Amino acid sequence: MLDGRIRCKTLNQKIMTAEKAAELIKDGMTVGASGFTPAGYPKAVPLALAQRAGDGEDIKITLITGASVGDELDGALTRSGVIARRYPYQTNASMRDAINNGSIKYSDMHLSHVPQWIKYGFFGKIDVVIVEAIGITENGGIIPSTSIGNSNVLVEMADMVIVELNTSQPVTLEGIHDIYSLDNPPNRKAIPIFKPDDRIGTTYIPCNPEKIKAIVYTDIIDKTRDVTLIDDDSRKISNHIIKFLYDEKTAGRIPEKLLPLQSGVGSVANAILGGLCECDFKNLTIYSEVLQDSVLDLIDAGKVDFASATSLTISPSRLDDFYRNFGKYRDKIILRPQEISNNPEVIRRLGVIAMNTAIEFDIYGNVNSTNIGGTRMMNGIGGSGDFTRNGYISIFTTVSTAKDGKISSIVPFVRHVDHTEHDVQVVVTEQGLADLRGLNPSERADLIIENCVHPDFKNQLREYVERAIRTSKFVHTPHDFETVFLEFSDD
Amino acid sequence: MLDGRIRCKTLNQKIMTAEKAAELIKDGMTVGASGFTPAGYPKAVPLALAQRAGDGEDIKITLITGASVGDELDGALTRSGVIARRYPYQTNASMRDAINNGSIKYSDMHLSHVPQWIKYGFFGKIDVVIVEAIGITENGGIIPSTSIGNSNVLVEMADMVIVELNTSQPVTLEGIHDIYSLDNPPNRKAIPIFKPDDRIGTTYIPCNPEKIKAIVYTDIIDKTRDVTLIDDDSRKISNHIIKFLYDEKTAGRIPEKLLPLQSGVGSVANAILGGLCECDFKNLTIYSEVLQDSVLDLIDAGKVDFASATSLTISPSRLDDFYRNFGKYRDKIILRPQEISNNPEVIRRLGVIAMNTAIEFDIYGNVNSTNIGGTRMMNGIGGSGDFTRNGYISIFTTVSTAKDGKISSIVPFVRHVDHTEHDVQVVVTEQGLADLRGLNPSERADLIIENCVHPDFKNQLREYVERAIRTSKFVHTPHDFETVFLEFSDD
Repeated sequence: MLDGRIRCKTLNQKIMTAEKAAELIKDGMTVGASGFTPAGYPKAVPLALAQRAGDGEDIKITLITGASVGDELDGALTRSGVIARRYPYQTNASMRDAINNGSIKYSDMHLSHVPQWIKYGFFGKIDVVIVEAIGITENGGIIPSTSIGNSNVLVEMADMVIVELNTSQPVTLEGIHDIYSLDNPPNRKAIPIFKPDDRIGTTYIPCNPEKIKAIVYTDIIDKTRDVTLIDDDSRKISNHIIKFLYDEKTAGRIPEKLLPLQSGVGSVANAILGGLCECDFKNLTIYSEVLQDSVLDLIDAGKVDFASATSLTISPSRLDDFYRNFGKYRDKIILRPQEISNNPEVIRRLGVIAMNTAIEFDIYGNVNSTNIGGTRMMNGIGGSGDFTRNGYISIFTTVSTAKDGKISSIVPFVRHVDHTEHDVQVVVTEQGLADLRGLNPSERADLIIENCVHPDFKNQLREYVERAIRTSKFVHTPHDFETVFLEFSDD
Repeated sequence: MLDGRIRCKTLNQKIMTAEKAAELIKDGMTVGASGFTPAGYPKAVPLALAQRAGDGEDIKITLITGASVGDELDGALTRSGVIARRYPYQTNASMRDAINNGSIKYSDMHLSHVPQWIKYGFFGKIDVVIVEAIGITENGGIIPSTSIGNSNVLVEMADMVIVELNTSQPVTLEGIHDIYSLDNPPNRKAIPIFKPDDRIGTTYIPCNPEKIKAIVYTDIIDKTRDVTLIDDDSRKISNHIIKFLYDEKTAGRIPEKLLPLQSGVGSVANAILGGLCECDFKNLTIYSEVLQDSVLDLIDAGKVDFASATSLTISPSRLDDFYRNFGKYRDKIILRPQEISNNPEVIRRLGVIAMNTAIEFDIYGNVNSTNIGGTRMMNGIGGSGDFTRNGYISIFTTVSTAKDGKISSIVPFVRHVDHTEHDVQVVVTEQGLADLRGLNPSERADLIIENCVHPDFKNQLREYVERAIRTSKFVHTPHDFETVFLEFSDD
């Protein structure tokens, strides 16, 4: 394997099979892994571990990653019954079922909390971390692949490190990473980022080579998903946001070049961000978690000058083109640890414009991002709270109806609250946008129903508000708790 | 009035009566005011304004302060019908009634959002600000009294400034303030605070003297309230927290000297913090919003070395003693703008231990801080979210029952969510403490019921959980939405 990916020559002796490396992982261990979206997560060692369980070995682990990962990790290990506990986020179909039937214990966490919880010791000892890499430097430094997530923190805190050198990930990625670690309080310093393109760290994760116990070669590709094209609803939502931002600029409430944009993850979020290709803004920047296809479109369209994130999730159909033209993007993107990409300090300082997707929101502006019907965990809150609470302005989007128009995405009271009325400033559907800033709850309800609710449900929601006012002793945030969940159900 | 409080001599000509100064305030204006808790808020001019309305003048204003203020401002102006809109927090009985009957439009906001909303222009133009001060420097700089709140930001943004020189506030307070203002994005710098006693600004609010249109002398005292003594329940809650922190220290999850403490405001919070006088920790520091009597107790007891906040709310019975011994406290306290005291950047960097009070919390760890029964606004969220979301660890406390033991403060689903399950790490009642870190929702429910719920309600809540599991298709966060609000009501 003298392909030059391992520059620390003493480490060549640590090359082994995935099966051999997986033997380092024992029952009861807490295992960290790289990965943030289906990008940059380990694949070969998890598959080997799943095989052991499939062969009958009784093995249960706690798994901590950056965020969601691909099926080789969350899916295979779920189906083989290896995962007992999971932090902090997932999007895998098998795992989702296991969480919802109670066989995996899942804690759905703000992503910016995770790195410090690891370092504070709140998760206990990290026994081993598996990190996907494109190479290892002369001093043992690990060069990540398509995401960073919590890898730097996990490598720092874990007893043992397993590196998966993935040859499907091009070495040309070297240089786009910017690794910077924070001390724990009371010794924490300021994070010296003042604009999205500030480079403050190293291009590799520092690692004592002696901690690297195994190096496994693999060429399994990231299981990114193709994204849907911009559909009519996404385009309408984008246009409402563009008009809002344009009006804000005209009113002098936001700078001419806007402020760094953050966009939630997924097909819909990608389409909404992609809609900005048709805006009149220029020299935009992105300070977000995940760079999806639409960011490449925005760079191509000359709209975006620079984009910072912790993950690069390019769809399969776009990937070849991306690497073929990598020179065009290299100086315009940076990947950071999620401790930095999602840090309240940086998000508040830069004044990030936060745009995230909701499952449903209610007439007072509370948002459910996680649990369909209040009890069925979909993915998790991810970084949406980190950006929403600390940004310049927080925007939530959803299509106004779900289940083929049968239910309204705007309800009297969301069945699970992930973002409160205090956090949410603007809500948008394809119907329109409601700017909630400065409004009291009753005004919010009127504006949301007027601007955002689908016509099929406006009267029903108006009737709820009238009934709530009639039956409540107090009318600041009126509710009729006897009926609040009886209508608008999607059970 | 040659008492030396006005060092900028040209400003002597601006001295006028409260009635004359109040004439600067016209119908429809947005009025800012100093004040954070019943400390350091203007008194004479609001009373004069209320009188005008009482005399029949039709005048409505929008009022923006730091946080709550005393009755001369929120109470008198509410009763005279002057306040149309109110941001961002209040604790006044008259105003609470007016909010709950719909006659005042109130937006309940995270306190750290307010200063930047003022500077971003989200509230529109600030016509006039009334600032209580103990003096004016040679260059027009305004020396605040017992609180800062948003005064610096309001003075910067307002068209006109009215200064209330309050001779009941001793000039010895000069020097305890540390005023530092932030630029708007994209030009915002790092806040250079690395420990609670770092001094980074000026001892006065910079102000172009030409903006000062009126100076009014008054001697009306801050209407602070006496605090209740530490009762049995508070002591038990304190002891649970002390034990938790001691265990965290022993486990190496928190430094020997702990980390800066934040405590919510009010009589109960004061009592709980006061309970720490009996702990074994030493050299503690405080990085909070409000310094109440218990902080003086902790300084006296040699527990606390330094305390930073934006308000100094000493109870009437303690005030004389405080000023008589001011030399003992002077070098141990600092007051900052709330943009700094509540800033996510500083709170996260310092690793503040956040301790706030709840009205109720639910079995999954969601907290209601604001609306009794879900519809009756009590005070507001204040700064609790700023500290909870960004601290080292977030703790919520409440007594386990309310209404003389007739209702449980722990319910299946809080009727208003101010802090979500993602935000809340530890909950405490006099019954015990539940450390929710790392637990999935079902485990949280079991632990909370076991440790925190009053024995009178344990079975009822256990039955709810069983029913929820039985009736839910999904058991990650089981709920029975048909009955969730039917029991545990305090309507």
